[in-house]
Amino acid sequence: MSKTEKLAQHLEKLRINNMYKNDFYWTWDKTDDELDAIFTVADALRDLRERNISTKVFDSGLGISIFRDNSTRTRFSFASACNLLGLDIKDLDEKTSQIAHGETVRETANMVSFMADVIGIRDDMFIEEGHKYQKTFMDALDEGYEKGILEQRPTLVNLQCDVDHPTQAMADLLHVIHEMGGVENLKGKKVAMTWAYSPSYGKPLSVPQGIIGLFTRFGMDVVLAHPEGYEILPEVEEIAAKNAQESGGSFRKVNSMEEAFKDADIVYPKSWAPFKAMEKRTQLYREGDKAGIDALEKELLAQNAEHKDWSCTEDMMKLTKDGKALYMHCLPADISGLSCAEGEVDNSVFDRYIEPLYKEASFKPYIIAAMIFLSKVKDPVAALRSLEKRGEKRKEF
Amino acid sequence: MSKTEKLAQHLEKLRINNMYKNDFYWTWDKTDDELDAIFTVADALRDLRERNISTKVFDSGLGISIFRDNSTRTRFSFASACNLLGLDIKDLDEKTSQIAHGETVRETANMVSFMADVIGIRDDMFIEEGHKYQKTFMDALDEGYEKGILEQRPTLVNLQCDVDHPTQAMADLLHVIHEMGGVENLKGKKVAMTWAYSPSYGKPLSVPQGIIGLFTRFGMDVVLAHPEGYEILPEVEEIAAKNAQESGGSFRKVNSMEEAFKDADIVYPKSWAPFKAMEKRTQLYREGDKAGIDALEKELLAQNAEHKDWSCTEDMMKLTKDGKALYMHCLPADISGLSCAEGEVDNSVFDRYIEPLYKEASFKPYIIAAMIFLSKVKDPVAALRSLEKRGEKRKEF
Amino acid sequence: MSKTEKLAQHLEKLRINNMYKNDFYWTWDKTDDELDAIFTVADALRDLRERNISTKVFDSGLGISIFRDNSTRTRFSFASACNLLGLDIKDLDEKTSQIAHGETVRETANMVSFMADVIGIRDDMFIEEGHKYQKTFMDALDEGYEKGILEQRPTLVNLQCDVDHPTQAMADLLHVIHEMGGVENLKGKKVAMTWAYSPSYGKPLSVPQGIIGLFTRFGMDVVLAHPEGYEILPEVEEIAAKNAQESGGSFRKVNSMEEAFKDADIVYPKSWAPFKAMEKRTQLYREGDKAGIDALEKELLAQNAEHKDWSCTEDMMKLTKDGKALYMHCLPADISGLSCAEGEVDNSVFDRYIEPLYKEASFKPYIIAAMIFLSKVKDPVAALRSLEKRGEKRKEF
Repeated sequence: MSKTEKLAQHLEKLRINNMYKNDFYWTWDKTDDELDAIFTVADALRDLRERNISTKVFDSGLGISIFRDNSTRTRFSFASACNLLGLDIKDLDEKTSQIAHGETVRETANMVSFMADVIGIRDDMFIEEGHKYQKTFMDALDEGYEKGILEQRPTLVNLQCDVDHPTQAMADLLHVIHEMGGVENLKGKKVAMTWAYSPSYGKPLSVPQGIIGLFTRFGMDVVLAHPEGYEILPEVEEIAAKNAQESGGSFRKVNSMEEAFKDADIVYPKSWAPFKAMEKRTQLYREGDKAGIDALEKELLAQNAEHKDWSCTEDMMKLTKDGKALYMHCLPADISGLSCAEGEVDNSVFDRYIEPLYKEASFKPYIIAAMIFLSKVKDPVAALRSLEKRGEKRKEF
Repeated sequence: MSKTEKLAQHLEKLRINNMYKNDFYWTWDKTDDELDAIFTVADALRDLRERNISTKVFDSGLGISIFRDNSTRTRFSFASACNLLGLDIKDLDEKTSQIAHGETVRETANMVSFMADVIGIRDDMFIEEGHKYQKTFMDALDEGYEKGILEQRPTLVNLQCDVDHPTQAMADLLHVIHEMGGVENLKGKKVAMTWAYSPSYGKPLSVPQGIIGLFTRFGMDVVLAHPEGYEILPEVEEIAAKNAQESGGSFRKVNSMEEAFKDADIVYPKSWAPFKAMEKRTQLYREGDKAGIDALEKELLAQNAEHKDWSCTEDMMKLTKDGKALYMHCLPADISGLSCAEGEVDNSVFDRYIEPLYKEASFKPYIIAAMIFLSKVKDPVAALRSLEKRGEKRKEF
Repeated sequence: MSKTEKLAQHLEKLRINNMYKNDFYWTWDKTDDELDAIFTVADALRDLRERNISTKVFDSGLGISIFRDNSTRTRFSFASACNLLGLDIKDLDEKTSQIAHGETVRETANMVSFMADVIGIRDDMFIEEGHKYQKTFMDALDEGYEKGILEQRPTLVNLQCDVDHPTQAMADLLHVIHEMGGVENLKGKKVAMTWAYSPSYGKPLSVPQGIIGLFTRFGMDVVLAHPEGYEILPEVEEIAAKNAQESGGSFRKVNSMEEAFKDADIVYPKSWAPFKAMEKRTQLYREGDKAGIDALEKELLAQNAEHKDWSCTEDMMKLTKDGKALYMHCLPADISGLSCAEGEVDNSVFDRYIEPLYKEASFKPYIIAAMIFLSKVKDPVAALRSLEKRGEKRKEF
């Protein structure tokens, strides 16, 4: 039996009726079965592609990508996912330095969607705004579809907002599942999602939020660590706590990197900006207060500099389980002595983990493709089987 | 009988032999049958797509888009149309702030066209230059094809020049046809193409020109209204007058928005720049006279400000037929109290017409696709029937 | 027998086992048979396309293009080639004004390649850096493939580095072969690769290097001419000398344009920057010495201005074989009296050769497609025959 067939049989058992024609905003909107389905389809699409079997579902159609923040990894992942399924990409360039107005978003949403099957949006720059932009955009498409303006309603893949970064967190977790030899081995594993020093400023909170919001669902012991003043969105912490309780794991917060790293199976040290400061920043942008923005940046950089000891050094790694925790990062990392003088991680640590880090990243195109697949294909079990049976070669000759 | 078959039967009766391998510059270059054919094929392609039937005509090939002015709507429409027919898009980035030289255009035209099937050009910035650029480009391709440099001669879709904006005007008219329940119902309808105040400067004349050049061919009573000093290209006015005479409609000019709106079935209030000023502007650009350009801009903005009463207000709408004329716009509009303090249209008017406005825009990808289809497919009747019979699904599964 | 079948029969005789899964850096890495194979496949793909036969090898997949210098011709050629074979293009935008660091290149290489089949890189700005970037990039992909991060190892097409410009030189030579009526007619032909004056600064050396490195392999008498001080990479001169000896042709250097043009069958007058100065420039960029860069530019422009007599004038052309040498250029040229006051070539000369110049350029998409084809298709002879037999129309209807 092929791997794809095995995966199809697993998929068959999951309750995933709600995924068809539905959007992907946050992992905590989705049931366990739905997340399982995404992992399953991602693995199946990868298996088919590795066996040179075409997974084209579309003969034509567009995937629209909207990056309101810079991106290379996610941009290429989305492009790869669309291509894998037969969609062409069209980028919508939008000015990133301004907050979009609702009416403009409504109009743009409809104007670019006449032949769109999927919309991928990255908007992580402004706390309180990123998710709102995506929601406004998709609500406008609902309206457009209902009124017969659009003949199909494209579905959303959240490519990072101010709240969650689901394609990252899902790719990260699929990587962990593969590294640990199956989802059943996650229970009881200790995960340290910790803040780390970076000489840059204002990195989004969606990665730590995405990680604690997702990893707590699998019975793991998730520790969120950061210096005082680097709080993340409280709503997501509540979700993490609730998840942990339901999954039989745990979630706790500490203000010590050492404590988080102690006996950890997985460490994810990464810089982010304090939630309160980012709220203030959004307000300054709304008011167009350039001087205020500059002052805030200076203040935050000074605050950061007080915590240069929050770094994933060799000594810190020694604290982890057998000194061999799985080191994770969404990339690019600020590497001490390589990309900056002092940063998130020692060069020697980073270098030792390059292979797993790149593997971690390699799941993202498939995670995105699976999200699209499950939102556009009515009977995904039958479709996977048909693709395998059809057996069209991706590369002829 | 399917809608597509009905449309194919209609297409069969039209004399459209000249469309194959031909360019689309201006609607008034085309016969009534040729315009009819574009509407017919646009409707057929839409019908097929709505029934999930693939309309791919090309297995590979490129659509080249050249936007010498900013664009979101037209850019996405062209991309969607190419994708619908199986062509990939490749954008040629060109500096928009300079007037292109003939020799450079000739070389560029050939260099980007070795595997191009269709060229879409938007060049509306400079009176006397936009059309010239397109013509120079396509003449160069004629030469390249004759001399065996190109193995196929790509055809042109004018995506807006200084004279006409045919994909806009055709999409607008197809929208009107659908709203009015058929082309036979257009006769005698009053259309008000009127200038409207906008706080911005230098909007192209090609929309009003395109509208009066096209709508006068269908027996409608077309009124062009603008304040004194906002004249459009006289050549296009002559064409409109001639069209009206031949179609049994009328064309007249007034200097009162009220008069134009009075009992109108359709209103199209939109800002544009005076033709004479645009001529002067082109000359200033040719001379590289930056100070002169700035002075002209200031002067035009002041002139505009004298006509803030030219706005599509609720009161103005009440003058129209039953107070319910079809409000049209090419988008984006300058909306009073929303996108600007005082603009082309009241927010409440605009908001009431959002549904038809978006529908209006939704025809553009199909109009462009129909233009490409009719210029590249030798026997379009047979091709439509084959596509339907072939019945390949656009979205499998 | 079709042209493609004839070409397939020729291809059958060539030893080209090493091409599969291999990169294309420099022509002198390749055997005579390998170069022959590229010309042969380029002609076959062109024949098939001209007969409206689809040459799609891929059903999906990505061609990644990385242009670290501006480009229109090569960019469109690469896009056309990918499209011809069924690959979508995704551009990686990289800052061109900085020298890339090895670690960053390694990471980027893997991040963009998860679903990539081919990588096209242009990096010609910095002597000692262009090739290094490509090599670092592809070595990282080797590593990624070996470690199971990538499920396929994309192959490289060098779209211009600091050493060679193989897609240009190969297209140029295929043009010459067609103009001369076959590769067997090249022997003994005199080729003048000469420096020419241009008012701009810092044009890459890869074109003259590519030409002498390739044309010397076909028994031609290749003369490299430039003013003193405009030396090119000595390593490439050595390769040219060795090639000439092996092929029964000759290679010599002169400091007189007249001497080079005398009785030449082919002339290729083109500006480039002195190798030593470019070496110095790279060093200044490494040091971030902006003042030094500006001073060097000034110095080089002054040096250039001393050699305005190095221009392909009508008088100069009269020196060539029957006054009718084939004039070649990679385009765009600096044309005296057209694009600049004094430049590389007289307007009247350039204008007379426009047809062959454009034909010369038309080979590049096919050369690139052939490079991709031979690196990705296991049995190219069988594949060409299958494509012809399969007979899928590129344009249906």
